[in-house]
Amino acid sequence: MDSPAVTTWWEDLQPGSVRELGSVTPTAQEIKDFAARFDPQPFHLDEAAGKASVFGGLCASGWHTCAMAMRLTVDNLLRTSSSMGSPGLENLRWMKPVYPGDTLTLRHRVTESRPSASRPDIGLVRSVWEMFNQRGEQVLHMEGHGMFRRRPPQP
Amino acid sequence: MDSPAVTTWWEDLQPGSVRELGSVTPTAQEIKDFAARFDPQPFHLDEAAGKASVFGGLCASGWHTCAMAMRLTVDNLLRTSSSMGSPGLENLRWMKPVYPGDTLTLRHRVTESRPSASRPDIGLVRSVWEMFNQRGEQVLHMEGHGMFRRRPPQP
Repeated sequence: MDSPAVTTWWEDLQPGSVRELGSVTPTAQEIKDFAARFDPQPFHLDEAAGKASVFGGLCASGWHTCAMAMRLTVDNLLRTSSSMGSPGLENLRWMKPVYPGDTLTLRHRVTESRPSASRPDIGLVRSVWEMFNQRGEQVLHMEGHGMFRRRPPQP
Repeated sequence: MDSPAVTTWWEDLQPGSVRELGSVTPTAQEIKDFAARFDPQPFHLDEAAGKASVFGGLCASGWHTCAMAMRLTVDNLLRTSSSMGSPGLENLRWMKPVYPGDTLTLRHRVTESRPSASRPDIGLVRSVWEMFNQRGEQVLHMEGHGMFRRRPPQP
């Protein structure tokens, strides 16, 4: 499988840098399909059950929202980066329900950056992801750690 | 949509209580299907790319692992509980890669519990989820907050 050329190395992920990672608009069918497979709670599967719930309508599994954020992150940052994966996340918050037809926009901000103490070819980055709906309401917050290869020395 | 009877209320989720929430064995096809939709990084899509990666083989997206844990939680705890959802998670850790054919077993432990200060019909619970593979290696850790309705007074 061909990999695209790396254009974003650890050095390019400076604290304070902000990237817009695109947007996604889940359909009712996509919300139900994800829920049927991974989160079959009634308010994620059925309009009437959603209406009767505290959410007021069919809404996406929080894990579906995270998965959509990941897809945008892969497409618009990781695919052309030197990412070596992530050990985990902090402070994941599902702040508002996501409804069918909502357009969700993802923003990525680097908050910390440091070279690896043990591996000179790697740097560590801490980032915040924030997702907003078309009304400007934040629906998702998460903070993640990432490992990226450092830019190779120029010959 | 009929809801099953509630058998687990806030009062049943006492600190220290441990629940085994079942197990799941993802196939290579399921790992690739999830990745194609939500996390199309080469090592989640293709055996050869996985072998060439730091993971040493095709492995599941961390979000797929979380989604599988959610499914076990819904099937074996939430479906028959008074759950009212979760505002979020802390300390999510992907500790080991998940490979096709791994059998993942999920354990849930309640760590804290308190009544809601503002709503007398609701209680709050903090829990730890731990997922292990068939070799006893932990692959996932997460800590979550949940809201549950309190047991109604007996007439």
